[in-house]
Order: sequence, then structure tokens, then C-alpha cells
Amino acid sequence: MAELIADYQPGYSMEHRFYKDPEIYETEVRNILLKHWILAGHVSQVPNPGDFFLFEFDRESVIVIRTREGEIKAHLNVCRHRGSHICLEKEGNAKLLTCPYHAWSFDLDGNLVAARLMADDFDKSKNGLHAAHVALVGGLVFVCLADEPPSLDGMREDLADVFETFGFDHMKLAASKTFPIAANWKLAVENYQECYHCTPSHQEYAKIHALALAPEKFGELKKDFLETGNSAIRTRESSFYFDRAKPGEEGYQYGRNPLLRGMKSGSLGGEEVAPLLGKIDRHDGGASEFMVGPLSFFLIYNDHMVGYRFVPNSHDSCSCDVFWFVRDDAEEGRDYDLEKLTWLWDITTQADEEIIVNNQKGVDSHYYAPGRLSEMESFEQSFLNWYLTALKGE
Amino acid sequence: MAELIADYQPGYSMEHRFYKDPEIYETEVRNILLKHWILAGHVSQVPNPGDFFLFEFDRESVIVIRTREGEIKAHLNVCRHRGSHICLEKEGNAKLLTCPYHAWSFDLDGNLVAARLMADDFDKSKNGLHAAHVALVGGLVFVCLADEPPSLDGMREDLADVFETFGFDHMKLAASKTFPIAANWKLAVENYQECYHCTPSHQEYAKIHALALAPEKFGELKKDFLETGNSAIRTRESSFYFDRAKPGEEGYQYGRNPLLRGMKSGSLGGEEVAPLLGKIDRHDGGASEFMVGPLSFFLIYNDHMVGYRFVPNSHDSCSCDVFWFVRDDAEEGRDYDLEKLTWLWDITTQADEEIIVNNQKGVDSHYYAPGRLSEMESFEQSFLNWYLTALKGE
Amino acid sequence: MAELIADYQPGYSMEHRFYKDPEIYETEVRNILLKHWILAGHVSQVPNPGDFFLFEFDRESVIVIRTREGEIKAHLNVCRHRGSHICLEKEGNAKLLTCPYHAWSFDLDGNLVAARLMADDFDKSKNGLHAAHVALVGGLVFVCLADEPPSLDGMREDLADVFETFGFDHMKLAASKTFPIAANWKLAVENYQECYHCTPSHQEYAKIHALALAPEKFGELKKDFLETGNSAIRTRESSFYFDRAKPGEEGYQYGRNPLLRGMKSGSLGGEEVAPLLGKIDRHDGGASEFMVGPLSFFLIYNDHMVGYRFVPNSHDSCSCDVFWFVRDDAEEGRDYDLEKLTWLWDITTQADEEIIVNNQKGVDSHYYAPGRLSEMESFEQSFLNWYLTALKGE
Repeated sequence: MAELIADYQPGYSMEHRFYKDPEIYETEVRNILLKHWILAGHVSQVPNPGDFFLFEFDRESVIVIRTREGEIKAHLNVCRHRGSHICLEKEGNAKLLTCPYHAWSFDLDGNLVAARLMADDFDKSKNGLHAAHVALVGGLVFVCLADEPPSLDGMREDLADVFETFGFDHMKLAASKTFPIAANWKLAVENYQECYHCTPSHQEYAKIHALALAPEKFGELKKDFLETGNSAIRTRESSFYFDRAKPGEEGYQYGRNPLLRGMKSGSLGGEEVAPLLGKIDRHDGGASEFMVGPLSFFLIYNDHMVGYRFVPNSHDSCSCDVFWFVRDDAEEGRDYDLEKLTWLWDITTQADEEIIVNNQKGVDSHYYAPGRLSEMESFEQSFLNWYLTALKGE
Repeated sequence: MAELIADYQPGYSMEHRFYKDPEIYETEVRNILLKHWILAGHVSQVPNPGDFFLFEFDRESVIVIRTREGEIKAHLNVCRHRGSHICLEKEGNAKLLTCPYHAWSFDLDGNLVAARLMADDFDKSKNGLHAAHVALVGGLVFVCLADEPPSLDGMREDLADVFETFGFDHMKLAASKTFPIAANWKLAVENYQECYHCTPSHQEYAKIHALALAPEKFGELKKDFLETGNSAIRTRESSFYFDRAKPGEEGYQYGRNPLLRGMKSGSLGGEEVAPLLGKIDRHDGGASEFMVGPLSFFLIYNDHMVGYRFVPNSHDSCSCDVFWFVRDDAEEGRDYDLEKLTWLWDITTQADEEIIVNNQKGVDSHYYAPGRLSEMESFEQSFLNWYLTALKGE
Repeated sequence: MAELIADYQPGYSMEHRFYKDPEIYETEVRNILLKHWILAGHVSQVPNPGDFFLFEFDRESVIVIRTREGEIKAHLNVCRHRGSHICLEKEGNAKLLTCPYHAWSFDLDGNLVAARLMADDFDKSKNGLHAAHVALVGGLVFVCLADEPPSLDGMREDLADVFETFGFDHMKLAASKTFPIAANWKLAVENYQECYHCTPSHQEYAKIHALALAPEKFGELKKDFLETGNSAIRTRESSFYFDRAKPGEEGYQYGRNPLLRGMKSGSLGGEEVAPLLGKIDRHDGGASEFMVGPLSFFLIYNDHMVGYRFVPNSHDSCSCDVFWFVRDDAEEGRDYDLEKLTWLWDITTQADEEIIVNNQKGVDSHYYAPGRLSEMESFEQSFLNWYLTALKGE
């Protein structure tokens, strides 16, 4: 594997073994997936003490739960007795987390509070549920399974104004949808990193977003957008993504890009589809990109936010989970229509699913060879650089 | 693997690799599954010469057949020519075992009696079907694929009175059902070895069996049961199971346990569901446990017997096959009702299937770690001790 | 593997690992499947410039296409950018081969003619589609993925009269059907190499073909057939198949065998089902066998030709693709009826599918051992000899 990594030629896509080999996948899980922050969900999914939902990927199941004190915690859904899953429903409310197998009971903080008929020397205090780290970014719940997660402090400080303007503390989850993809997870992440494919593959997106344009044309539009000074939201970029992350910190990025002329939001015809978010007072023809860690991405329109999470299930299957957020006092039916809200990224992610699966099919060929990347794939290049270093686990 | 075995800490469950690794599974097949006696079925399934049924597990298919002389024999369902399965139906009657591929024909004893157009030097006498060892325990048909199976002589002598009292020679198979389980076979066997989970998971069972109670309470009830001397059946225990098996002999166990007050049988309300077995003349509030080898278990009520067989299909799937036996002169409709007879262990095994699958899911987690066993899991501990030694194949 | 190959005992079937081991399979793909000629289809499937169909097996997808100049070419269906499949439909017509992902466009000859927004130093001329070799044998399209394919020149010269008599240049594909088989591909090929199983397994075939008879009887009939001199078609055999292939040349074989008395074609009752092929002027009670390479076989009746292609999809699954050819000026409905034309080999291949799957099941057993081959399996022996040498890749 070290040799394979060393052989990578920058400017090109990767060798096919990276997308197929179960051993490489196991290394990825250990060195990447279990070491970084991943979007688990949103506080609006667990409004009351005892409310929980499961966040599941690869061979892991994590219980995200609101404690009696109102905190959000995350526990591995693995009983400390003989390992059974404890919560079997994808979401619910529990007073105690009682394992259905032998009735070991854990409180909402994960402490073992009852284990029937155990020997006297059995120490309940050492048998609490394995905790996952939780970080709230506004109402977004991020989870990290590492012993020592990368820091989010720099990002929090840097983007405080962004979170406030967009009202990250005042959103709710309006809808979500899972798109299973019969492909290695990296092909899904790579697909999200570049808009070189937007014009050929996503005509609906390309009618709204300037990002689908050629770099030169996009550059002009972006320059105009920034220079008018008309943006309702911060336009200064923060580019600490992937291989540009600061040491010890989770990678992140923030940027603001123009929509095409007359477009207000990511929807049919670019029409607005929900009340303006946070402190925003108008549609200004822009949309913001935000990412945290290697698997969680956000596209923030002025009236709603879309979250994308890419999670592996095995070496050859993953899913893209899409989340739609609106301001928390918006009311479905009155303030927004679910079908209109979700239309663009439902149709776009369906198209991506097909694209990614066909990419995997070709990459599987004995005759596939890494191909030259374009300028519009520089973000993907950054991901590949980061991935190959992270894979080493050094 | 030797290291993994050496690292096992008694008093705890096992490392996750034992439940997931295909290589460990292959070693198990070789050193355990192909070396021990397994319940294949019952003579009542093959009343007439030429009657046969298939017993299938892992990559094996065994033809259990009654010969012209009335003997029960077992042959590997693998043609000695190019290996095709010979019997394609799960049961039937045959005058000859003729391979559907090239028509090599074997008699019911497995001798090759016809092979068309073979060279003159081809020796039919050396091309009989590979034989599996067969042992009858009453009407129960056990099969062992080892060259030299462990002895059953000690068990036969020791339990002769038990077999006679329960009329092992005078039962018939009334029903059977296969429960596929998406989990490693050991999780299914372990589940059967302990009643620590009975109260939380099996309320129907727990209303009938004292075994579901806490050990202290169960001990009292058992003492009462034994001291009244009222049992209609032998109560002396034989505890040569798993790691307690005598050298060169197959492990076995026999014991008799009280039911809860007023209960007669394993059924809704504890009511009797069939005529009394063998020489038993009354319901006495007890039920017997009997096991042979690592995969075959029996629960004997005074009016019927339930058999459980756990067989692996691959490293991550197995099945639990449940058999219901009644006395051979009982008549369905008149003497017993199939739905009432099978109710308890149908519902209980369905629940176990779910439990075991959820156990596997949790054991698959990177964060699962072996957990402390309770006193009520001592039988499981015995299984684990035995398994880890047997796995070495020494 | 070298040891396993060395241990093979001629006159017997092979060890089970050859039919199960994924690593051996990968070696087979590299050393055998990607190095030999395989039937891809027929020119009648692509009458016009831009017409294409996909030939897919293992992890490969090949675009067989007619160029503007009318040539038949074959390109790997793998974009030179990031590897996506380019053609997603199994057949169609294209003016350009444009990748649906990022719109790189290749002309019908496979040259990259457009790649949007690539750096100035990107050399389109070095990024054409990977070409597969194409050979036309009459209208049959063969494809080889090797850098240097084995020569077909000897065969072309040797069999020129056969191709002319049967009108290989004047056929069309009337029907085709894919039979998925849950077994290793070699069991499917071996099945096709011997008629020892025809009498037990294929009564429909055995009513028409003398080849199903015992060798002695078949020999007599063949001698009669040849000595009458009545054959409408060349009867001289060319036996350069498998281990008899000439160095550097692809293996091939041609032979002519008698049908049973009164039979004209491979159909219900042996009746004719289509107009006579090529220059043939009568039904003469014979049928010809023709094979090219290890995976492509033909049975040529006087009025139609059936092609069989065995392609692996993985170590434990393959498919048998059957093609029915008639003369190119025959008209469906008027000159032939599809159901009558395809009846024999539809029913026969269905039976073979079941046979082969049951063969795999038995070969999977720990108790399978290589068995003695009969005289009627000498062709299969030749295949095994060749396979074991070819597997080494020397």
C-alpha cells in the first residue's frame, strides 16, 4: 500500500485498487473515517430529553441522544455485556437505554445503572457505553469516534459571523433522504468536489449556479459579485480544507459564490422556496459553500441550507445522505413546500448516483488507468493529496 | 489465530474476529463441524427402503437414506465422477441413486453399480459414495463426517433409562422449521446456552420455565422439585458437556428442571399438547434437557420433545432448525394440534433470531470489546472454553 | 498454485480449489481470458456507421462499433479521464462517444476529439480509448484484449472453404439469449466439451445427434456417413483445439458429424427450420462443429448456426450466451419461425444451466475428490491440459 501511495502521480486520478481493495478500505476506516468529524444530524431531531436517533455507517451504529440535562451526547450502540445493539429503532424516545438481550440498562449519559445478577466484583462504573465525541455547530450535530478528535476551535472562531448571519442556531431539519450508491465512497466524495461535470450532467443545477461555468467565465462573474459589495453575507473565503487544514485541526472551508443572473435559490427557476435564514434581509444572488472534515458538506442558499454526508458501508458501497434545513420558525405548508424545497438536490443527487456507479464500473476495468485532471478538479486534487497522506495514518 | 486464542480472558465474551473472520470460520469447519456428531433428522422421515432426505450445512449435502435391509445410512451427495450433486430434491424415494449428470448409479448402500462406458481398468468398487457415520439414538439420526467420530458409547450406557422412559424408540417427527439467521453460528449456539436473556426476551417461555428465574430462586425451586421425589422421570444429572466431555467421547448432558407451578408443558398456558411420551404416566411439573455434541440440543417435555440444531452456512450466516417430536402412535388432529404444539418454540426462536442478528451487528463494531459474563452464563463459558480448544484442532 | 497445477492427475477432473478460489480466478483472467479471442457478436448487429453494442464480461465492457468508414472496431468502454463507462446502453447508435460524466468526446475510431477546459499541455492524441483487437470471421466479430493476440491466419487459410460453403459472410443474427449460471466458468466450458452427459441429460438433443451415442456406435455411424461421400460440406477435420493449437496461433477445430437417421437440423423432430445456408444445396444428415479459442463454440446445421459463448462474471458466476444465425436474406415469419429455430438449444441450455450449478455445489464439498474421466470426455481432458498450462502464463 505504501508503494501504491508513493506511485500516485499528482494531476491524475488514482489507481483502481484504491477503489476496490477491501484491505485498503479497512485501513481507510481506521485511519480516516474513525478519526474525523462527521455530520450526524441536527438538534431539531431530538427536541426533548430522551429523544434519540441513530447515525450508522460502515460497521458502526451511534446513538445520538438528548440527556435529562438537555445536552446532546453520543454513545456507541454496543452493549458492554456481549455487544448487542441496544437501540433497534432508527429514532425514538427512551427513559433508559435498556439492552433488549439481557436487560443491562444505561442512563441517557451512557452510565450502566442496572445489570442483573452480576458477580459482586463487577464494577458498573467501568461498563458505561463507549462515548463518541459530540460537537455542535449551531444546531448541527457532529460526531467523532477518535480518542482525540481534531480541533474545531479555529473554525468556530473564524466562522462565528457566518454562523450568526445564517442563523445556524435557529434552523430545523425539514427533510432528509438517503441515496444508496453501489460504489466506493471516495468516488462519491470526489464527485462532490468538482463542478467539471455540472454542465454535462446537471442541467437543472447549471441553470442556477455560476459554478458550472468555465473557470474564466466564473471568475468574471465572481469578481463582479464580490465587487458590487451587494452580498448580504460575508464573502471572505476560508480555505483550510483537506490538505490545507491547520495541524491538529479539522479541515474546513467557507466561500461565497454567485448564482446566475436573477436566481435567488436552489430551486426550479431559481425561485425562493422558504423564508430568509437568520439575519439575512434579502436575496442577493449568491450562495455559500461550507464544509467540515472529509465527509460533510453544505450549500447555503439565503433561504435554506442543504447538507450532504457521504458515508461508506463497505469497500464497494456507500450512501449520500442529503439534509434540507430551513429557519426553525418556518412552518411547512405555510412557509415552504417540501416538494419545491427538495426538488433540485433530489434530482441532482439521483443523477450523481448514476454517474458515480458508472464511474466505479469503469474504474474496475483492467484497462482503466489514472487520467489527467482538469483545472476545475483542483478541489478534488486537494482531496486526493489529503487522502493519500491520511491513509498512512502517520 | 493461536495468539487470539491465547488472549482470551475467561469470564468474558470473545473477541469480534471470532465472529467475522472467514479464515477462522474455515478452521472451525475443519476442526469442529466436520469432526462432531450433528442431528440430521429422524427415522420417521424415512419409513421405507429407498426413502431419503438431505441434511445440508456449510458446503456439504448429506443423503440420509434407508437401505433395502432397513438400515439408515448416510452418503455424501457428491458423485465420484465429476462431483455433481446426485439427489436434487430435499427428500424422496429412490431405487438407485443415479447422478443426473452422467448417470453413474449407486445402490442405496452407496456402492457404484453402473458407470457407462468407462475404461476397462476402472474399478467400480473403489468409487462408492463417500460415507458419513450414522448413529441412532432411539429414532434420532445423528451424522458425523469425521474419519473417526467421537464415541457415543458412554452416553448410550449412561442414559439408557432416560431413552427408555421417554420412549426415544417410539417417537415421530411431527413438524420442523428452519430459521435462517444472519449471524455467525456461535452467537446462535451461545444464545441457546444461557437463560440470562430469557426474562427480558422470552416472556412466553418465562411464564412456564423456572430456568428463567434468578439462580437463587431457581435453586430453591429445583431443590423442592427434586426432594418431593415426585418426578415421573430420572432426575440425576449427567454433565459431560463441552469442556467436560470424557476423552475420546462426544460431549453430552442430561438434566431435569422444574417448570413453574401448575405448568405441564411448553405451550400457551403450560397446557398439555400431546399424549404422554414413552412410559411416562403423568405430568409432574418438570422438563428435561438433553444435548449431544456442540450443535444439537433437546428440550423434553412429558408430552413432546423439541430438538434444536444450529448449522453454519458461511462465516456470517447460519440456521436454527427446530424439530417437534411426539409419540409415534399420536395422530394429528385427534391427539395433537400442530399450531398448539409448535407455538412456544416458534415464537421463541423467532425472537432469538432477532436477538442474535442484533448481537452480530454490535459485535461487528470496532468499539465492541469482550464483556463480563454473568453466573447465568456458565454453560456458555463452558462452550467457549471447549470451542477455543477444539479450534486448535490438536 | 504451481503446486496445485503440478499435482493434477491426467485422466481425472480437477481439484475443487480451481473452481472456487478467487485468487486462481484473478490469475485466469490475466493469463487466459484477457489473452484469447472471444466471440463478441455479429456484424449484422451494427449495420450502419455509429451502430454499436456492448460486449461485457468479468469487469470489462467493450464497445463494438462500426466506424464512419464502415470498419468494425472495439474500444474499452472506459473514459481516459477518470474512468467512467461511456456507453450506458447495451446497444445504440452514436455520432460521437461522449462520456456522460465530463463530456470528453471520442470519435468512432476512439480518438479523443474534445476534452473541455484541459490544460494547454494536455495531449489529446495520447488519450484515445484503449483499443481491443477485432477479427472478423465472416460476419462473426471476435475481440481480443491482449497486446499481441494469438494469430488466426492458419485457421483462416485452413477453413476458407468451410466459411465459404456455409456462407459465413452471408449470415445474420436472428436471436440471442443469455443464461446466467451460478458456477465457475470452467464447469460450463467442460460441460460443453463432452457428450457423455447428452443421453442422461438432453433427451431432445439425443434424439437428433449421433454424438450422444456410445463411442463405438458413433464411430460406426460416422464411418458410414463419411464413406457414403454424400456430405454436402467438407468433412475433413481440423483438430488444433486447446492443447493441440499450433504455437502462436489461437486454437480452433472443425469437424463434421452425422445426425441420426432422417434428421435434418437441430429442432423438434429434426425438421428443417430455415433456408439452407451459403452454398449448401441439400440436407445431408450431418452437422459441423467449429470452435475458436477457449470460450467460443459453434454448431452448424445446414440451415442455421448456433453460437455458444461462455464468459465469467466472477469466480463463482458466469453466463452462457447463445446466438442463432440464419442466412442474411431469410425473413422472419416467412422463412423461419423464431420459436422453432431456438427451441432445441434453449431447452438444452436451460438443462445445462441446472447441471452445471449442481456440479458446482458438489465440487464445493470438502469431500469432493477428482474423479476418473471417461473416453467420451477426451475433449474435456484436452481443455484441462491446456487450461493448466495456460494458467501458468508462461
